[in-house]
Amino acid sequence: MSLAYGVFARRGEAPRVGARRGDRVLDLAALAAAGRLGALPERVFARADLNAFMAAGRKAWRECGERLADIDEGGIALAEVELLLPIAVADYVDFFSSLEHARNAGRMFRPDAEPLPPNWRHLPIGYHGRAGTVVVSGTPVTRPSGQAKEPDAAAPVFGPSRRLDFELELGFVIGAPSRLGEPVPAERATEHVFGVVLVNDWSARDIQAWESRPLGPFLGKSFATSVGAWVVPLDALEPYKVPAPPQEPEPLPYLREEPWAYDVELEIELQGQVVSRTSARNLYWSVAQQIAHLTINGASLRTGDLLASGTVSGPEKRSRGSLLELSWNGSDPLELADGSTRTFLLDGDEVVLRGATADGAVALGEVRGRVLPA
Amino acid sequence: MSLAYGVFARRGEAPRVGARRGDRVLDLAALAAAGRLGALPERVFARADLNAFMAAGRKAWRECGERLADIDEGGIALAEVELLLPIAVADYVDFFSSLEHARNAGRMFRPDAEPLPPNWRHLPIGYHGRAGTVVVSGTPVTRPSGQAKEPDAAAPVFGPSRRLDFELELGFVIGAPSRLGEPVPAERATEHVFGVVLVNDWSARDIQAWESRPLGPFLGKSFATSVGAWVVPLDALEPYKVPAPPQEPEPLPYLREEPWAYDVELEIELQGQVVSRTSARNLYWSVAQQIAHLTINGASLRTGDLLASGTVSGPEKRSRGSLLELSWNGSDPLELADGSTRTFLLDGDEVVLRGATADGAVALGEVRGRVLPA
Repeated sequence: MSLAYGVFARRGEAPRVGARRGDRVLDLAALAAAGRLGALPERVFARADLNAFMAAGRKAWRECGERLADIDEGGIALAEVELLLPIAVADYVDFFSSLEHARNAGRMFRPDAEPLPPNWRHLPIGYHGRAGTVVVSGTPVTRPSGQAKEPDAAAPVFGPSRRLDFELELGFVIGAPSRLGEPVPAERATEHVFGVVLVNDWSARDIQAWESRPLGPFLGKSFATSVGAWVVPLDALEPYKVPAPPQEPEPLPYLREEPWAYDVELEIELQGQVVSRTSARNLYWSVAQQIAHLTINGASLRTGDLLASGTVSGPEKRSRGSLLELSWNGSDPLELADGSTRTFLLDGDEVVLRGATADGAVALGEVRGRVLPA
Repeated sequence: MSLAYGVFARRGEAPRVGARRGDRVLDLAALAAAGRLGALPERVFARADLNAFMAAGRKAWRECGERLADIDEGGIALAEVELLLPIAVADYVDFFSSLEHARNAGRMFRPDAEPLPPNWRHLPIGYHGRAGTVVVSGTPVTRPSGQAKEPDAAAPVFGPSRRLDFELELGFVIGAPSRLGEPVPAERATEHVFGVVLVNDWSARDIQAWESRPLGPFLGKSFATSVGAWVVPLDALEPYKVPAPPQEPEPLPYLREEPWAYDVELEIELQGQVVSRTSARNLYWSVAQQIAHLTINGASLRTGDLLASGTVSGPEKRSRGSLLELSWNGSDPLELADGSTRTFLLDGDEVVLRGATADGAVALGEVRGRVLPA
């Protein structure tokens, strides 16, 4: 299985950075202290997040990976450790880069209009989410309360969300920062990316619908965003870059590149049953284009920035990345094997997102979360 | 002049926390090392941001303020130090809490519809901004480039923004954090607020207009947000709370409180000339309501969260808080004393925002920025 980095703690001990090795984890702080990880000192790993390691840059990441490949120790059993949030999230940006997802949203919410917003094919639409509520896989998610208004109601009502949803996304974590005022060109953008995590961007559709005009999603998203415990180095995905269909119309020069995507298979499990299978190759905008866009106004990247793809949906019904789409906004309930149906999530539901290359060589692991009642 | 905290550095020395005293600054790290600031140790102040101090909580803030009142040293001349960004910004949230600003935006951009969005009087609308591009007063702001589309054009064009603007805002800085899953009630919300800063939320109106549907502002705002170098403790504003008009309709219970606002006078200087005067008492939603709303879905507050009010506009033409409104989207150019006019900002323009109570006892200082060419 591929190299992946995370943060773990043994009972009563301080958190430290580890590398996944099957069902065990290597203690990188201990290895660095013993001089076995090259130039990187122990303090880079003897801490509660990957950020110091991520800030060290691609040369250091590669050297560390090469050293680890030569180490044949087993490490500590995962059963003996707690896995923690792997990164201190700087800014969290959520994009909207799946054509099928954007089209589905348009068809559901603006049935009489062109499904895609007019700007959609010209730029990778995105917005900032709440970095402070990013949680690690396994953290329960309490159903949020808030305001919602039925279309024909005179006023909003307050209560637990009745349209709680998941969103299957791929997240890219920035390692090497960039300077304020210096846009990062698309062709050099991936140099800044440390690695990839799975993301579940939990969404309360009713809260979101009422609050979003004119400034976008806020409380409908900010209650929790789950990420996987393991960050896979971007280098591992390099062999899985595949050409993507041409972008029409051709984007403006700063976004122009040969279209490509990562061929990573993704699946959604709800209550123990796989309800959707899709692929990151279905994304229209690449992470390189997202970074070129994000920085074209001079905005800087910081170590720990998390750039999520937006919901990854494919063209088939069972390749959609949210319950909103799988149940077509509740009009076509999803049937589960136990005979129950879902329009949106019920209290107690457990959602597991998984990702891996088809050959199994690169495994993103899983992001798991159970819904607790409000 | 009121107590205010900031971060300063003398040439060649490490940054540390200071307290403003006229045109001098007290070195709090040195005072703490000498045991003169009560229980707070030197390390709380011997660092490049206020966050450790802010995390210490209201009791520690008050004790520190009382100790400082008894210290009659002059400190270091401000002319000898550089003032740095005072806080490490965790999440940056920008609200939209001025009724006049929201109405003006509606009248300009949706002239055939009700000026206020339907949700506006029911909740304090807000969205997340980019924490990583918050800069301190005095930092030049380079005109951002990006995509914009004229209404009658077939496609967007790329180039420097032609509608660069400022926004006069008041920012509240979170000191004491809250827990994930535990909403902060309005009546206890200000316990979490360390203090107040001035904010200039620079905006590229043309970029913003093209990108914002459906997920809100992104690159039109993310290139820079300037904050003042001095954070005034919230306690200092307590005597300046004034009753505000009733909120109609009455908000949902979690937002309900006797309406109030801070009576802080604000002004905008453009190229050395005051072009607008307004007051924070013109804000419809209070910071307590903003915090109650922000956390009602379970989202937590972190030390260093910055909550900006949104543009503060008053009812008169010359009390509007943005050039967008002062020039009515460019249709009514603002005339300056030198005979020139402004629709939006020109390269070289300097904008200074100032804030103080009418009696001068509480001074927020200024936030200053000059526009550099793209």
